[in-house]
Amino acid sequence: MERFLLILDFIGTFAFAISGATIGVRHRLDLFGVLVLAFATATLGGIVRDVLIGAVPAALANWNYLALACVAGLVTFYRHGLVERLRNPVQLFDAAGLALFAVVGASKALAFGLSPFAAVLLGMLSGIGGGMARDVLVARVPVVLQADLYAVAALAAAAVVVVGDRLDLSEEWTLPAGILLCFGLRYMAIRHGWRLPEARPHDVG
Amino acid sequence: MERFLLILDFIGTFAFAISGATIGVRHRLDLFGVLVLAFATATLGGIVRDVLIGAVPAALANWNYLALACVAGLVTFYRHGLVERLRNPVQLFDAAGLALFAVVGASKALAFGLSPFAAVLLGMLSGIGGGMARDVLVARVPVVLQADLYAVAALAAAAVVVVGDRLDLSEEWTLPAGILLCFGLRYMAIRHGWRLPEARPHDVG
Amino acid sequence: MERFLLILDFIGTFAFAISGATIGVRHRLDLFGVLVLAFATATLGGIVRDVLIGAVPAALANWNYLALACVAGLVTFYRHGLVERLRNPVQLFDAAGLALFAVVGASKALAFGLSPFAAVLLGMLSGIGGGMARDVLVARVPVVLQADLYAVAALAAAAVVVVGDRLDLSEEWTLPAGILLCFGLRYMAIRHGWRLPEARPHDVG
Repeated sequence: MERFLLILDFIGTFAFAISGATIGVRHRLDLFGVLVLAFATATLGGIVRDVLIGAVPAALANWNYLALACVAGLVTFYRHGLVERLRNPVQLFDAAGLALFAVVGASKALAFGLSPFAAVLLGMLSGIGGGMARDVLVARVPVVLQADLYAVAALAAAAVVVVGDRLDLSEEWTLPAGILLCFGLRYMAIRHGWRLPEARPHDVG
Repeated sequence: MERFLLILDFIGTFAFAISGATIGVRHRLDLFGVLVLAFATATLGGIVRDVLIGAVPAALANWNYLALACVAGLVTFYRHGLVERLRNPVQLFDAAGLALFAVVGASKALAFGLSPFAAVLLGMLSGIGGGMARDVLVARVPVVLQADLYAVAALAAAAVVVVGDRLDLSEEWTLPAGILLCFGLRYMAIRHGWRLPEARPHDVG
Repeated sequence: MERFLLILDFIGTFAFAISGATIGVRHRLDLFGVLVLAFATATLGGIVRDVLIGAVPAALANWNYLALACVAGLVTFYRHGLVERLRNPVQLFDAAGLALFAVVGASKALAFGLSPFAAVLLGMLSGIGGGMARDVLVARVPVVLQADLYAVAALAAAAVVVVGDRLDLSEEWTLPAGILLCFGLRYMAIRHGWRLPEARPHDVG
């Protein structure tokens, strides 16, 4: 189970790193700027989660995270055409990272003995943190505040893991279910425009 | 006393959440984006304070904060006209949150055994943190860097609490005094243009 | 040695505070806004480092940091012409702060028993954190993502300290060597345009 979680964490790291690096290339950053943005996107959600639950941040203790982010950054930097040929590469890799980190974060919070409520919140936070950092760093409004069904999707995935834990279901089932739910919601939102109601402000200031 | 502090903390949370949600509605975020911005504005100052003093972040341990932020966000989202009818609703609710969090933050830092100097600083930080997070997230320069008498007001409120503690005055008196001082300074700054000297840069680059 | 590190830390704090205050004056902030920006630039890199390694943030425990940042901010505010007469004052002071904090951060991480890998990473983070905070607060893209040889220089300085520690060299030699290397790389990048390859995005979106 440990190993299964770690593999999910690595895949999420790689996916977020590619989304960060792609944004970096689009903003014409130099090679190291792209790597920094890839690493920040891939690890800041998890670092914040670990600081909040009192764990040593995994991304600082284990060099695999930096290596993964650098590989993803280098591939994106030198093979940018390949990545952009995918439709909406940033959104797709971002959705994968969101789903993976939300379930891993919720599971890690439960393992550290946090309450179900806090575990759902921390799962959501782990999922949305990396993308928020990426967007704040290039001075655009974070996708989580604007995108359709973004934080909701991360919240749903974390809730599946936590509710499954209360019902004594195996994480072998609840983790993939949460990932599928979150990625599915984001995919439907991106491709088919599923969305929440929007505010109609009376005056703007 | 515990209960009195908690009530002040809840009122501050509600006030900051309304200011965050109002900014969110003005930026045409969807419902969940508004709730995320309300929650971030209401809790990030306190979360940073708790991480720095080594406490478990109250906003993650206690679901009341999330519930309060959601209620404030929903009210603002669906009854936006009501809120905007107040003059400068963002600034007024922001001033209330600033005053409440500055005194609560200073008091909590003292209770955790920090030095008077650190307690004043942490009180100020608790007060200004939420508004900074709100403004960074929607990519505008934080109000604390531009508004008249903003950080000064939070600093004054925290100093009242800390000096009162050194003089063995009861927090029943020092907390309300700090709140009134901070809110009053901000009110005079907003309504009557009280301000600090401004720099006149020789060249801008 | 303790004292030597502390002096380097103070000089770095002062240098970063001047760079932050200069940006604040250029953005026409009021006096307190300039002081807040000076303090944030000077201390946030170290605060993040201390939170991550589990130390009490030095900038909160010790009033010297606040005093230094305030002196730097006041000088810059009232003698802005003097500071601007230097060519690129923000970049020069920023380079000094970067070099000093990178070596101090790596050394402190080693003293707290972190692995060489984590110490290099934390050194870099201590160096780049303050400037990132400064730029995010005034809503511009952080210099670390765009400037030539910025994070690379901090990384090199931290690596010198960590490799020196593995080879049992005295920090009396490795700290100055790291500082010179980092400051030299930044100076060549600013004055002579040394840079890393830049991405050529195929399409921008």
